[in-house]
Amino acid sequence: MISTSDVERAAARIHGRVRRTPVLFDDGVWFKLEHLQHTGSFKARGAFNRIIAAGALSAAGVVAASGGNAGLAVAYAAREFGVAARVFVPATAPAVKVAKLHALGAAVELVGEKYADAYDAAVKHAADSGALFCHAYDQPEICAGQGTIGLELLEQVDGLDTILVAVGGGGLLAGIAAAVEGRARVIGVEPRTIPTLHSALDAGEPVQVAVSGLAADSLGASRLGDIAFAVATRTGAGSVLVDDAAIAEARATLWDRYRLAVEAGGATAYAALLSGAYVPAPGERVAVLLCGANTDPATLTSPSGAPPAARTPR
Amino acid sequence: MISTSDVERAAARIHGRVRRTPVLFDDGVWFKLEHLQHTGSFKARGAFNRIIAAGALSAAGVVAASGGNAGLAVAYAAREFGVAARVFVPATAPAVKVAKLHALGAAVELVGEKYADAYDAAVKHAADSGALFCHAYDQPEICAGQGTIGLELLEQVDGLDTILVAVGGGGLLAGIAAAVEGRARVIGVEPRTIPTLHSALDAGEPVQVAVSGLAADSLGASRLGDIAFAVATRTGAGSVLVDDAAIAEARATLWDRYRLAVEAGGATAYAALLSGAYVPAPGERVAVLLCGANTDPATLTSPSGAPPAARTPR
Ligand SMILES: Cc1ncc(COP(=O)(O)O)c(C=O)c1O
Ligand SMILES: Cc1ncc(COP(=O)(O)O)c(C=O)c1O
Repeated sequence: MISTSDVERAAARIHGRVRRTPVLFDDGVWFKLEHLQHTGSFKARGAFNRIIAAGALSAAGVVAASGGNAGLAVAYAAREFGVAARVFVPATAPAVKVAKLHALGAAVELVGEKYADAYDAAVKHAADSGALFCHAYDQPEICAGQGTIGLELLEQVDGLDTILVAVGGGGLLAGIAAAVEGRARVIGVEPRTIPTLHSALDAGEPVQVAVSGLAADSLGASRLGDIAFAVATRTGAGSVLVDDAAIAEARATLWDRYRLAVEAGGATAYAALLSGAYVPAPGERVAVLLCGANTDPATLTSPSGAPPAARTPR
Repeated sequence: MISTSDVERAAARIHGRVRRTPVLFDDGVWFKLEHLQHTGSFKARGAFNRIIAAGALSAAGVVAASGGNAGLAVAYAAREFGVAARVFVPATAPAVKVAKLHALGAAVELVGEKYADAYDAAVKHAADSGALFCHAYDQPEICAGQGTIGLELLEQVDGLDTILVAVGGGGLLAGIAAAVEGRARVIGVEPRTIPTLHSALDAGEPVQVAVSGLAADSLGASRLGDIAFAVATRTGAGSVLVDDAAIAEARATLWDRYRLAVEAGGATAYAALLSGAYVPAPGERVAVLLCGANTDPATLTSPSGAPPAARTPR
């Protein structure tokens, strides 16, 4: 469980390490341009907070399991401190992602076929070596770091009412909901094909869900984190589902209309607004979080208007 | 000639019509994200100011000569007011640009092989039909509209010292230099292959230059505008030249490091900083204007690291 003061402490810790990302206002919406963060996603915030909060590290450094944005962020933050980083990745991960981890100086371990295999290996490595394990979403320092976005938004948008946030394992939602608790409302947005938050709220506890669809590479956690569940229920976070077609359209619209280049997960929150899955009340002041841009820019425009091909789950 | 008060009047006129584009601070630099403007470049500002300042228009509407960003902006602004737009374009213009003009509801006239042919035809059409001619850079209302960027920057960056601005015909530089006159310094940045400002300052008057290189499609004016020359000399604007390799590197870096997608002309101001062509003094507060994003995003990443292929002049 985390609270506003955890997020405030995180903000003080990571100050100067992460970018204060700007906000673009247009057409009644505040877009938080967090996809311009170091390594192309908000994940740098949690990674820095986790590493700084841990204090002195052993020579084993830090370890993570991720073929995606969380791994990049941990590798980047570790490099900033001159600390060793080891990232466990399923052997099925795209070579381009592995190359990016290498470029950031991380040791990369290819393990198994599925994310769960890489995860188990990373946890074991941490136990064996004393390396600091950085979870992709379900650790208090990770969540609190992501939540610093919420504090910035309160400063950037006068009278902010509502923040639309994409949900995978829910670390982002948890941090932001804790940050703005009592001051603004948070709505979790998920692909209909990966409803971790929605299913957890329905079931009264986090449950396993199937993972597929356009945004699976970033939002493809198979179960909501426990911290996210606790914060979402305590703060009364809302939950909205969107179709892959709406995600593809939101992503194309962000490029066509704004020249903002985001990945599918990064467009998911906007899809709720654009498709009408979330309809603000008159006068409601809504911020949409654009949370990631780790995408092949060649897929931003498709002459046919067809959505880019679906990706495989992480 | 234009002055700060012309720009202030322009800002009042176009308020609510254009986006107030945000600023990203990183690594000692303020990036003004003007490439997120309507139609993907700052040109919407001048187009709105020109059209609104003109008051009631005849049924002939507005006319421009451009296969690029100026044409898109005029077509967009005209559509917002339900006014007819006619854009003259050299027959050599890429079909994709013509399609974009059509999509904005403009009538497109393909004339001749060179920009000068389209320009002459547009001027003649304006004289014959009574349509309002919108110059790409050398009209007071166009320059003053572009200059509203300078007023925003003064509000967005405390203690701003210097603004780096790409130069084609110089309308953008003229407007911004007038806007911040006496409060901040403006440095014009140009490709070494299209030195309109540099040659004009050398010669003591605007002179014809050859046009080639990576940014020719947006910065490829062959002579500095008279307004730009007058304002640049009055305000003591600086001039810096950059190589195409520096422009390509700046563009690639903006994508790699920031996930900002800009065209070659949009990266030119940053090239001055990144290549060391412009070296700020210790403590100097520098803003870099990112002015356009009308680019094929597939060209943002090249696995070889090679710069994208050179383009043909407009
Ligand atoms: C771009 C992007 N958006 C959203 C998320 C979801 O974050 P969380 O797992 O904290 O819900 C991720 C997670 O990797 C991501 O990379
Ligand atoms: C992206 C971009 N940057 C800069 C310029 C240069 O503007 P100016 O001709 O006013 O100097 C242009 C002109 O078309 C442009 O499109």
